[in-house]
Amino acid sequence: MMTKNKKKELTAAFIAVRAQTEALCAPLEIEDYSVQPIVDVSPPKWHLAHITWFFEEFLLRKFDSNYQDFHDDFAYLFNSYYNNAGDRVIRPNRGLMTRPTVSEVYAYRKYVTQSVLDLLERTEDESILDLLEIGINHEQQHQELLAYDIKYILGHQPLFPTYKTDIKLISEENLDTFIHITEGLYEVGHKDDSFCFDNELGAHKVYLQDYKIAVAPVTNGEYLEFIHAGGYKNFNYWHAEGLDFIRNNKIEAPMYWHNVNGDWYYYNYEGLEKIDMRLPVMHVSFYEAFAYAEWKGMRLPTEFEWEIAAPQIKHGQVWEWTGSAYLPYPNFTKDEGALGEYNGKFMVSQHVLRGGSIATPKGHCRPTYRNFFHPQHRWLFSGIRLAK
Amino acid sequence: MMTKNKKKELTAAFIAVRAQTEALCAPLEIEDYSVQPIVDVSPPKWHLAHITWFFEEFLLRKFDSNYQDFHDDFAYLFNSYYNNAGDRVIRPNRGLMTRPTVSEVYAYRKYVTQSVLDLLERTEDESILDLLEIGINHEQQHQELLAYDIKYILGHQPLFPTYKTDIKLISEENLDTFIHITEGLYEVGHKDDSFCFDNELGAHKVYLQDYKIAVAPVTNGEYLEFIHAGGYKNFNYWHAEGLDFIRNNKIEAPMYWHNVNGDWYYYNYEGLEKIDMRLPVMHVSFYEAFAYAEWKGMRLPTEFEWEIAAPQIKHGQVWEWTGSAYLPYPNFTKDEGALGEYNGKFMVSQHVLRGGSIATPKGHCRPTYRNFFHPQHRWLFSGIRLAK
Amino acid sequence: MMTKNKKKELTAAFIAVRAQTEALCAPLEIEDYSVQPIVDVSPPKWHLAHITWFFEEFLLRKFDSNYQDFHDDFAYLFNSYYNNAGDRVIRPNRGLMTRPTVSEVYAYRKYVTQSVLDLLERTEDESILDLLEIGINHEQQHQELLAYDIKYILGHQPLFPTYKTDIKLISEENLDTFIHITEGLYEVGHKDDSFCFDNELGAHKVYLQDYKIAVAPVTNGEYLEFIHAGGYKNFNYWHAEGLDFIRNNKIEAPMYWHNVNGDWYYYNYEGLEKIDMRLPVMHVSFYEAFAYAEWKGMRLPTEFEWEIAAPQIKHGQVWEWTGSAYLPYPNFTKDEGALGEYNGKFMVSQHVLRGGSIATPKGHCRPTYRNFFHPQHRWLFSGIRLAK
Amino acid sequence: MMTKNKKKELTAAFIAVRAQTEALCAPLEIEDYSVQPIVDVSPPKWHLAHITWFFEEFLLRKFDSNYQDFHDDFAYLFNSYYNNAGDRVIRPNRGLMTRPTVSEVYAYRKYVTQSVLDLLERTEDESILDLLEIGINHEQQHQELLAYDIKYILGHQPLFPTYKTDIKLISEENLDTFIHITEGLYEVGHKDDSFCFDNELGAHKVYLQDYKIAVAPVTNGEYLEFIHAGGYKNFNYWHAEGLDFIRNNKIEAPMYWHNVNGDWYYYNYEGLEKIDMRLPVMHVSFYEAFAYAEWKGMRLPTEFEWEIAAPQIKHGQVWEWTGSAYLPYPNFTKDEGALGEYNGKFMVSQHVLRGGSIATPKGHCRPTYRNFFHPQHRWLFSGIRLAK
Repeated sequence: MMTKNKKKELTAAFIAVRAQTEALCAPLEIEDYSVQPIVDVSPPKWHLAHITWFFEEFLLRKFDSNYQDFHDDFAYLFNSYYNNAGDRVIRPNRGLMTRPTVSEVYAYRKYVTQSVLDLLERTEDESILDLLEIGINHEQQHQELLAYDIKYILGHQPLFPTYKTDIKLISEENLDTFIHITEGLYEVGHKDDSFCFDNELGAHKVYLQDYKIAVAPVTNGEYLEFIHAGGYKNFNYWHAEGLDFIRNNKIEAPMYWHNVNGDWYYYNYEGLEKIDMRLPVMHVSFYEAFAYAEWKGMRLPTEFEWEIAAPQIKHGQVWEWTGSAYLPYPNFTKDEGALGEYNGKFMVSQHVLRGGSIATPKGHCRPTYRNFFHPQHRWLFSGIRLAK
Repeated sequence: MMTKNKKKELTAAFIAVRAQTEALCAPLEIEDYSVQPIVDVSPPKWHLAHITWFFEEFLLRKFDSNYQDFHDDFAYLFNSYYNNAGDRVIRPNRGLMTRPTVSEVYAYRKYVTQSVLDLLERTEDESILDLLEIGINHEQQHQELLAYDIKYILGHQPLFPTYKTDIKLISEENLDTFIHITEGLYEVGHKDDSFCFDNELGAHKVYLQDYKIAVAPVTNGEYLEFIHAGGYKNFNYWHAEGLDFIRNNKIEAPMYWHNVNGDWYYYNYEGLEKIDMRLPVMHVSFYEAFAYAEWKGMRLPTEFEWEIAAPQIKHGQVWEWTGSAYLPYPNFTKDEGALGEYNGKFMVSQHVLRGGSIATPKGHCRPTYRNFFHPQHRWLFSGIRLAK
Repeated sequence: MMTKNKKKELTAAFIAVRAQTEALCAPLEIEDYSVQPIVDVSPPKWHLAHITWFFEEFLLRKFDSNYQDFHDDFAYLFNSYYNNAGDRVIRPNRGLMTRPTVSEVYAYRKYVTQSVLDLLERTEDESILDLLEIGINHEQQHQELLAYDIKYILGHQPLFPTYKTDIKLISEENLDTFIHITEGLYEVGHKDDSFCFDNELGAHKVYLQDYKIAVAPVTNGEYLEFIHAGGYKNFNYWHAEGLDFIRNNKIEAPMYWHNVNGDWYYYNYEGLEKIDMRLPVMHVSFYEAFAYAEWKGMRLPTEFEWEIAAPQIKHGQVWEWTGSAYLPYPNFTKDEGALGEYNGKFMVSQHVLRGGSIATPKGHCRPTYRNFFHPQHRWLFSGIRLAK
Repeated sequence: MMTKNKKKELTAAFIAVRAQTEALCAPLEIEDYSVQPIVDVSPPKWHLAHITWFFEEFLLRKFDSNYQDFHDDFAYLFNSYYNNAGDRVIRPNRGLMTRPTVSEVYAYRKYVTQSVLDLLERTEDESILDLLEIGINHEQQHQELLAYDIKYILGHQPLFPTYKTDIKLISEENLDTFIHITEGLYEVGHKDDSFCFDNELGAHKVYLQDYKIAVAPVTNGEYLEFIHAGGYKNFNYWHAEGLDFIRNNKIEAPMYWHNVNGDWYYYNYEGLEKIDMRLPVMHVSFYEAFAYAEWKGMRLPTEFEWEIAAPQIKHGQVWEWTGSAYLPYPNFTKDEGALGEYNGKFMVSQHVLRGGSIATPKGHCRPTYRNFFHPQHRWLFSGIRLAK
């Protein structure tokens, strides 16, 4: 019975998630679907197909002996990084695939969605449900990446086109309020039996020193003070490699900010608009978050400080860079086979972000969720929270 | 009267050329229009808009005082390399422009075509006709580039899609026949008052030594012997920089050739097919053409040897690499302003090709026409003719 | 009195350290002093001058009002990375400076050494002694870098020349022995008032889970088993970026290892010699250390696990990669001015190594010492210790 | 008898050339010998050894059956680009070889010089003398390259050291005088039986149009007018790739020119000195020479125009960029084997310079001599002569 409910719930979630991904893409022109302006930004068409391939590879091929592949070569075209699942198109070439067309990819989606629903109807095998749940969460993660990538693609068009969406920030308050957490032993990591990724498992004790943490993230208005104070020019605020990064790339403000005759504008899905000073600052690299904190005489919280304080602070508008490198928890173990490549092999040279953004699907904003990006990345919905 | 006939002819030519360009693109999917897989290959959408901008910039803006630009930013988006015509999107970013869409570009074409036709109806100014003729020839040059770029885009898809076209090679004969031209003084360059480009002007005398030149270009079958004889491995046949080029790029055969289990195939618009040994070899770089000739104990003809022999030899299937660098003729002069940038500023580091290919619009195959590319280029329809 | 002893001791240490650096370089030819084969490897001449400039900049210019610079431009030539100390030659150009000559640099050393000794004789200012101690430790750190860089320079000569030294490894024992540390709260970081760097300060409590840690580092013999088992080929053992690293650089063994007709040799200061299986493996990147541990079904210890276990384990032959990223301790603070750039600005994208190597000056092998390098570095004397 | 005289003369020339090369290097410090600041600039030590290897490889190994190689690995270390002579150190790594030392290379020179002299004493074989003559000319070419490379190495030291030499320019006169050559058939190429390189052979007729050519090369003063007139800013004077070149490299003046507080200085072996306006301009690329001519409304002469005018014009201070690409003469043939690689394989993508410079050994200044460099090169002693 347990299973029956779970199956019913997951089936509904599956249908909803598949529809939601397509809703995200509905405002796009065909031309917007195929382009890869930088290596990190995948074409929307690729996302649509890749998250479909994920269900095909890990569900249909494993559990449906009658399943016919939609196309012989799609595994090669739409595998992202799973070495255990075979060869694949190298990442920088995703934007060169004009075929299959967008409409063929939608046909692929439809075919796989229906095949999964058919399989779910027939099966009683509980292990399918676990993989289905991973697949749903995987597609949700790509929904957020789609929001980033669509913004990047459109926000770098010379004509700044409009994309209709309700992914919108709201004003922040209580800007100067800090809460105090006292020194002591705390427990972190995912504990109950709800869904989580492997990198959150292994709940364990950590010892934290006394700290204070801001109730709200840093706003555009506050960040602009840093710019005006020459923050991008004073080398003392920056990591050595952060300084190289902003100098080599001539960075003087967050991504999407443009200075037009002395006034600051940004691209925000609607087109180019004046900066709203009350909204949280977004699209900063770890280096910029760190430099801002240095300028304030403070620091970024560690991921554990963040997690312990989470119930008392406002979060969920922007992913917040923490001072913690992305490393395995004690007792971290990887799955056998391709799914073991999901998180573990990225645990080096990246930093943890916590919180969730306005583009994050509900349920991914749990306090134990560990997001991670390289310190120079700015196209994600990243912001800053101060600690001291 | 002269003018009236000329106007009538050019108007008809203009209409035909505009239609022909769109016919070339008709078999494409929307997705194929926007991609730029390498810097040299421009997106078909860009070609469609650029050759339209050319008429807008050099005809409508100059001669039609009532002309309203179709869009304020298109000059910035679709100028290719004319510094005198203002700023422009840098070349490597042509493939990142998802907007304007393909259908907007077709609307742009329609608007400009009609505006030119309206202007032609109203005007009696002969200088317009000269610019119109340049514009027509310019669009024809881009038709050939479109053929190259479409082939590159589709030929580099993992799925090798089909493109319907009658751009097709025919078999060569008389392979081992050479004609003999005797030493003496000859005249080269464009002489009569038909249309030509500035780089052909300045007819002048040249003194040629005795030489023999092949009646037909080298075939796939002949070129395959070079491959089988280890031609790509023997450094003695290659320029030093040619050797670096084939080694660094792991080149072992012409572009589009694939060795599948020991048999040679190529992509030729229809998909992947077995090599036809009787067709002229195509898609070789200057380095390969040179190395092939070295292996045969012969050489490539100079552009003047080619031009003098042209009436007695078969040509027009592939552009033929000559041994001549692309340099100005004696008394070469450039136009004032942007059109002066058409040819002159490229007269360094390139090699001249003569003849014309199956993708070359009629009229561009004249014996004085000087085509030019860098020695490493292979995506054009280039082949080899021997001399000794 | 305290001061008088301290001054006496430090003066003696200063003299000894200055002599020791020159002893390290004594076996070099003039030609070996100036070369910079990769960006990371600085020319020995540059080291000799830079560590001298350090005393000039931070001691003599600050405290000796009569001090005359040895040369106006040496600050520009030999500043390493201190933005607060002014402009400098960019790092990749260190190997292009043929002037000043080696003998001029030795004259510079002599002049500065004598000036420091004169100043010490005259002064009673205790703060000088602190800076002197930093300078001595700084020069000692460069002694170790000199050992790395000399090995790199000579070990990459086609002729594998000999360098006379007693920097030599000894055999390891107790290879399969692990000790067990029980879960609980521990204290880490530098506590007493002996010398340490700023990155070790801020002793604090950490909570460790139960773990086992090897008594000895991994040997060449053990590592060779990993190679023979196809460890460099199996992607499942590697970080994604580690896999890219070994593939792009065609890495199949530690740095300095050469496979000659099926037998493994390495360059080890004496020339090319057969691998000694009983010695600790050296010259591996973090990626290789991690992959080795994965293959063993174990992991690398964290830096805190290492520090707590240090008294019970053998260490000091090779720096041991830990699983910890190089990040600031709680309450880490930087000095004002240039010395604040010593460590803090590197606390991103690097990994901590603990232990000390055969090239590490005595006193730097303390258990709290935090060495740090990027995960791809291999030219340091780095090795592997397992934990589980 | 003929032979006896020839042998005597060549033996004397050999001794003189060997001594002259060492005289060029005498003012260097050991440190200056080993550095390779850019790929094009080889370390003086490498030159010293390479030109010695040339005699060893092509004379001693071929004709002296008792000859013992000085060192087994020197052929590998000091072969420049002769594929037929075996593997070699790749060019960018020449500057990393600290061993053999400078004094070992001088010992190598001495050994080979003596071995050649011994062989000459014993032999009556005339073909040795031809190879000896090539070797002497080869060493002379490297003497000129040594002058360039030494200037580059010292001129890029932050301290601008002095190098004692009598390689010095003298003032130019008759600046605005042009001579007129009438249209007609002329003969070019090397005719008599004196020594020349293979690329000069094949004397042949060329037809030249009427032209005027300047009696003297362009001076620093004249070139400065071009700079002041904004010549480096006006895109209309430049080849497209020339414009990219000066923009990407931020070039605003000839190499070695420095603008210090509004005044122009250059490095000229003595140190940094004020520009002398009456001397010929030196260290310009082909692109700059071309742009200067465009600005003057003139052009560069072709290599044949230059050769025919040579007897009537002053030359020999700077190599003069011609408008001619470096291509084979009619009937050009290469030697069998390694010496066939001497010139032929470079006949693409380079431009011909004619005339000879103050660093050119006597005898290399003959009017038929074809020097060649890539259009962006500036470290040679290159200048400008105008034609129209």
